[in-house]
Amino acid sequence: MRTQVGIIGAGPAGLLLSRLLALQGIDSVVLENRSREYVEARIRAGILEQHTVDTLTAAGLGDRLQREGLEHRGIYLQYPGTRHKLDFPELCGRSVWVYGQTEVTKDLIKAQLDGGPPLLFEVSDVRPEDVDTDAPRIRFVDADGTEQVLECDVIAGTDGFHGVSRPIVTGGGQGRTWERTYPYAWLGILADAAPATDELIYAWHPEGFALYSMRSPKVSRLYLQVDPTEKIEDWSDDRIWDNLATRFAHEGWEITTGTVTEKSILPMRSFVSAPMRRGRLFLAGDAAHIVPPTGAKGLNLAVADVTLLATALVRLLQEKQSDLVDSYSDRALARVWRCTHFSWFMTSMLHRSGDDFDAELQLSQLRRIVASESAARELAENYTGLPLDL
Amino acid sequence: MRTQVGIIGAGPAGLLLSRLLALQGIDSVVLENRSREYVEARIRAGILEQHTVDTLTAAGLGDRLQREGLEHRGIYLQYPGTRHKLDFPELCGRSVWVYGQTEVTKDLIKAQLDGGPPLLFEVSDVRPEDVDTDAPRIRFVDADGTEQVLECDVIAGTDGFHGVSRPIVTGGGQGRTWERTYPYAWLGILADAAPATDELIYAWHPEGFALYSMRSPKVSRLYLQVDPTEKIEDWSDDRIWDNLATRFAHEGWEITTGTVTEKSILPMRSFVSAPMRRGRLFLAGDAAHIVPPTGAKGLNLAVADVTLLATALVRLLQEKQSDLVDSYSDRALARVWRCTHFSWFMTSMLHRSGDDFDAELQLSQLRRIVASESAARELAENYTGLPLDL
Repeated sequence: MRTQVGIIGAGPAGLLLSRLLALQGIDSVVLENRSREYVEARIRAGILEQHTVDTLTAAGLGDRLQREGLEHRGIYLQYPGTRHKLDFPELCGRSVWVYGQTEVTKDLIKAQLDGGPPLLFEVSDVRPEDVDTDAPRIRFVDADGTEQVLECDVIAGTDGFHGVSRPIVTGGGQGRTWERTYPYAWLGILADAAPATDELIYAWHPEGFALYSMRSPKVSRLYLQVDPTEKIEDWSDDRIWDNLATRFAHEGWEITTGTVTEKSILPMRSFVSAPMRRGRLFLAGDAAHIVPPTGAKGLNLAVADVTLLATALVRLLQEKQSDLVDSYSDRALARVWRCTHFSWFMTSMLHRSGDDFDAELQLSQLRRIVASESAARELAENYTGLPLDL
Repeated sequence: MRTQVGIIGAGPAGLLLSRLLALQGIDSVVLENRSREYVEARIRAGILEQHTVDTLTAAGLGDRLQREGLEHRGIYLQYPGTRHKLDFPELCGRSVWVYGQTEVTKDLIKAQLDGGPPLLFEVSDVRPEDVDTDAPRIRFVDADGTEQVLECDVIAGTDGFHGVSRPIVTGGGQGRTWERTYPYAWLGILADAAPATDELIYAWHPEGFALYSMRSPKVSRLYLQVDPTEKIEDWSDDRIWDNLATRFAHEGWEITTGTVTEKSILPMRSFVSAPMRRGRLFLAGDAAHIVPPTGAKGLNLAVADVTLLATALVRLLQEKQSDLVDSYSDRALARVWRCTHFSWFMTSMLHRSGDDFDAELQLSQLRRIVASESAARELAENYTGLPLDL
């Protein structure tokens, strides 16, 4: 087998890259070690920046997004006694969209299988090779158990945090990684319950952070800060709803409960690796960086990465110019660190941790954002997404 | 002896309070356990917010300040490769002034001794009593060794972090305190050297923070982040200048050296106590709160406290209305926490501490402030001073 760009991993990063390249006449093959059913069932983030919506729409993936996506023009910041709306269009002229990453993935897979580049599920033993040459290849075993070799011009490692690509780029002392594990986790539920709020609610509470979000007019997605050692079996639905009701308590308002259809505990981590390239192997998305979910940057960063990378690869493969692939890592990392900082800022401001002095600093910061146009605007600009090139 | 307001401590807070009260026809007596020479020689902060300048000027203390004070229209933020000016008037319409706290104190003492309310130096064994009644008193021993009793309507505790007033307000489980000790200190020098910069330089450097400030066109005040266990004897002038040159290094620029006239190591601490009142005893300034010096809020907070307190005491003693003394603590603390947060923010952003991930977060925040109008404005508004009532 031979293609121009071998793409490892069929998450949104890999699939969108394949799509963006195809639109520019570049061939690719996408390899995924999970099944289609598994990939389409993964519950992930659900907030799209305007830039992400524009990119997906321009790539011909906007039909269902425009129909079913919900434009959100702000968020509520809550702390005891206060629920304050930050109006994003007023603060910075942009909005965000609620549309689950799962739905983005389904749309991308559908487009790919409907005449797009090859997408191979359930491959195994994927091994990128000779990435320091102009003729790298990917060895893998296909779904039928047959050894295959995919000869490429370039390999894209979009295989997530646990994938095989990053160790090749940053292993053996060739790169650097930075990591922060937060001393708390999120207990998340999906519930068949109409959201009791028009916008997401980010709630600071003495007992811990809570986030009220939604996937559709009938489905709520709610989170509770919990200790990372908590076990999901110890959290009955009643216990979860009780804790949510306490943390979101606000005069004259009540939470809407419903059947819990999914619940799990998610760790919170910041992770950055650099560079995002070795020779002809390029990293994008979670393969290169992880942000905690507060601030909803993970999917948007992946889309930004592959938008930069697609342009760089078109220039390399069609115009034979290496300037954009040479600058890819630095340009992507500038945005990665901005979003890493913003995600850390949102996370640190909203989660209970540390001592009472830390709690007062958090409340002082929240009060300032509620009272100050410049502090609110700084949050809104970051939340709704900064320009592709910082 | 009898007065309306007995003031403990002749720092800028106590002296300014006495002055503001006198202008409204309220009597006071200021008690200070140090000598005039000692008080006038203490080297402290040197940045005045516009509000502080306005308050001092309105109190008839602006002559020398207007003559010798230096208006500063911004600061430089520096990190390797970048020295960026934040233009305060452009960002928020306000400036700050360089005029040493020592000079403010001298002006206040001169005004006080020149026909102002009594100011007693070198008193000892100061004991506020019966603060829960309408007739409190201060027992003390005067400079001649004679026991005295000062009968008052109100006592103001402006006697600093180590003073006798705060334990009476927050001791015995009646109040709360919050404290943070930072894992670094400042080594500060005064030098007979013309400043090599028109504005203060706040420099992030891998080896630690450095601050270039000045007291006059011929006197520089420079600081180095050091470990709090460092001993000043181990820091020769040459070693200090070498470290300053390294941390302020910037292409095409050189530091100006000169004779070091003072050097010392200053601890870094955040401290807040609440409430700021018990009965007829009111705290103001360092007696109630300490901020780390990054951000230059200490003196300005003290001036804001006594501005609020003077108005409240005039209303109590002349109009017999207790509303403003009843709200004093909450109003003052709103501002105290804002400035405590801002001082913590500036300190945490600029000092090397923690791991390499923290360093990248700091650089990401600094790059954002340099690149973004809203982030820069948020810093400028806080640095130049927010309105008296938040």
